[in-house]
Amino acid sequence: MTKIYAYAIRKDEEPYVREWSNAHKDVDVKFTDQLLTPETAELAKGADGVVTYQQLDYKADTIEALDKLGIHNWSIRNVGIDNIDLKKAKELGFKLTNVPVYSPDAIAEHAAIQAARVLRQDKAMDEKLAKHDFRWAPTIGREVRDQTVGVIGTGHIGQVFMRIMEGFGAKVIAYDIFQNPILKKKGYYVDTLDELYAQSDVISLHVPDVPENIHMINDESIKKMKDDVVIVNVSRGPLVDTDAVIRGLDSGKVFGFVMDTYEGEVGIFNEDFTDKELPDKRLADLVARPNVLVTPHTAFYTTHAVRNMVINSFDNNLKLIEGETPDTPVDLNKEF
Amino acid sequence: MTKIYAYAIRKDEEPYVREWSNAHKDVDVKFTDQLLTPETAELAKGADGVVTYQQLDYKADTIEALDKLGIHNWSIRNVGIDNIDLKKAKELGFKLTNVPVYSPDAIAEHAAIQAARVLRQDKAMDEKLAKHDFRWAPTIGREVRDQTVGVIGTGHIGQVFMRIMEGFGAKVIAYDIFQNPILKKKGYYVDTLDELYAQSDVISLHVPDVPENIHMINDESIKKMKDDVVIVNVSRGPLVDTDAVIRGLDSGKVFGFVMDTYEGEVGIFNEDFTDKELPDKRLADLVARPNVLVTPHTAFYTTHAVRNMVINSFDNNLKLIEGETPDTPVDLNKEF
Ligand SMILES: NC(=O)c1ccc[n+]([C@@H]2O[C@H](COP(=O)([O-])OP(=O)(O)OC[C@H]3O[C@@H](n4cnc5c(N)ncnc54)[C@H](O)[C@@H]3O)[C@@H](O)[C@H]2O)c1
Ligand SMILES: NC(=O)c1ccc[n+]([C@@H]2O[C@H](COP(=O)([O-])OP(=O)(O)OC[C@H]3O[C@@H](n4cnc5c(N)ncnc54)[C@H](O)[C@@H]3O)[C@@H](O)[C@H]2O)c1
Repeated sequence: MTKIYAYAIRKDEEPYVREWSNAHKDVDVKFTDQLLTPETAELAKGADGVVTYQQLDYKADTIEALDKLGIHNWSIRNVGIDNIDLKKAKELGFKLTNVPVYSPDAIAEHAAIQAARVLRQDKAMDEKLAKHDFRWAPTIGREVRDQTVGVIGTGHIGQVFMRIMEGFGAKVIAYDIFQNPILKKKGYYVDTLDELYAQSDVISLHVPDVPENIHMINDESIKKMKDDVVIVNVSRGPLVDTDAVIRGLDSGKVFGFVMDTYEGEVGIFNEDFTDKELPDKRLADLVARPNVLVTPHTAFYTTHAVRNMVINSFDNNLKLIEGETPDTPVDLNKEF
Repeated sequence: MTKIYAYAIRKDEEPYVREWSNAHKDVDVKFTDQLLTPETAELAKGADGVVTYQQLDYKADTIEALDKLGIHNWSIRNVGIDNIDLKKAKELGFKLTNVPVYSPDAIAEHAAIQAARVLRQDKAMDEKLAKHDFRWAPTIGREVRDQTVGVIGTGHIGQVFMRIMEGFGAKVIAYDIFQNPILKKKGYYVDTLDELYAQSDVISLHVPDVPENIHMINDESIKKMKDDVVIVNVSRGPLVDTDAVIRGLDSGKVFGFVMDTYEGEVGIFNEDFTDKELPDKRLADLVARPNVLVTPHTAFYTTHAVRNMVINSFDNNLKLIEGETPDTPVDLNKEF
């Protein structure tokens, strides 16, 4: 009987593991909440493939441990593969899959909701309510429909974000270095980032953090923006010069900031600092501001996304095992 | 020179009073932040009309005070006229206007944002962040696009709410005792409330609180709903049997509750109970729950709405003064 062993399965993933397992009675599915390490590799003994989640670095020792057990079919449930020693994996004859797109809507919805909340001064109102101050003035909202929303990057996520903002009745404009022909025809694109900065009340980033894009939001670009601009980054922390945004918030130029990803997030996001000293003072300051909404890289974290990550990774793994072409293989022959 | 005197102008209204005044150089506009009372009526001396905001009861003495000053053109900046002694106003020859619709989007956007936040478990995440707990599990979100959204009441506000939810990609169904022909043609309507309850993951009320609708959400109706339903009331407090919703929340049947209007709101909403005992324990309990979002009847409170309230009321008042037909007169010959 075909056997798949899965690592680091969280409580919220279990229903989908069970769903997949029930749909594949001929596959023996076992799982643990432990991470895959050189030590825990042993748990997968006898399996034809493993399913994991990016969290730790998978170094040569981990990969060799799987190899010793004769396991070479490896499916990860998320996108990132930069934590895997791909050279070693290739050398030992591994076949690898990931899940590059699991739910653009998860991220786009989060961006839209949080942007709307900043416009609405929602956090300030929540804080008033929590201390039983029920007065509404001066916590007045700006309606989404009154905003010009500038979208930088019109890929999977940016496009969904555009649709949601249009549902609210906002005017949407966009910039991308590769213009999508359908969006182009509909007249969304401005020709330069400067035009987008000059016209937008809300600016949302949906681009990768390739080197050219690092700190694309900085003192210079903020200077080009309208007063009372709302900046949204649910993409990658390094896209934004955080200190520049803080200067903009302090001067009153920037109305609010949505930050799901943070250039200093490694070692902090997904960790618990309750009753502990938070080593990053800048982050503590941002979290405390009434016009800044920080979330710990959770834009992706929905039932829809998690289901796709689980189901697609198991589908991929079974295809690897059966010698078929998986839906989203990682090409180990590429130069990394 | 024509003179208009306005009462109870808040800081956030001032820019729009100034905007109107600048556009009407031939009108002498004066205002105060004080409420209109028998005592403050004197401030309007020499004015041709007054602009007010519903807050106090306007009893016979107030109306008589205006009458003595020879002022009979009265424009209120909001909808409600039930706090005005209309008989007395009619008897003394007043002409009255209100602003019945100022921004359906303000209320619909708020309903949509808050519903999305409940689905997302946003408040729980915010609370974790505030204490520097950056772990994401188990605070997982449900995407709006995966929900069937049931809209009760497809008037001004309900229709905007429907459009926003569709922008997210949700499936929208609706119920109204008077079906809008265009919406009917598009196939939105179910025939009974029971059908709507049976199918909806999110249920949002956009109906008036006429006697037939009081406590339309109650133990019976909640029993007919799907498990994990989200209930949204940004319309009128009395539509919902609050205790029934609390029972639903406690049993786990109801996933979350959005409450901008509350059957016990009078005397509490728009008051400050910071460092004071909140007389309503039930409300304190609701405010503290991570899956309940309370706002103090502020769904309407946006710059767009406030601008419309100011501009439209002044427009109305000037038309009354000049003997023209105002856009939204209150018919004092109707039986109240
Ligand atoms: N917060 C989260 O949980 C989360 C989850 C998944 C993805 N993301 C991030 O969201 C972002 C967008 O993801 P996607 O799936 O939509 O990517 P995508 O590849 O589908 O789209 C990216 C778009 O950006 C454009 N682009 C690249 N550089 C640009 C530049 N300098 N100016 C303008 N356009 C530029 C590309 O042409 C492309 O159209 C990525 O940064 C990704 O890492 C975040
Ligand atoms: N929270 C706020 O700040 C705020 C501000 C303004 C209005 N409101 C409230 O929002 C609600 C909707 O306002 P609107 O302007 O859209 O009203 P509207 O009159 O335009 O629409 C109301 C709709 O409800 C329908 N209806 C009445 N009783 C019904 C029932 N039992 N079942 C189904 N449908 C029924 C009517 O046929 C109508 O189509 C009202 O209760 C209003 O008081 C709240």
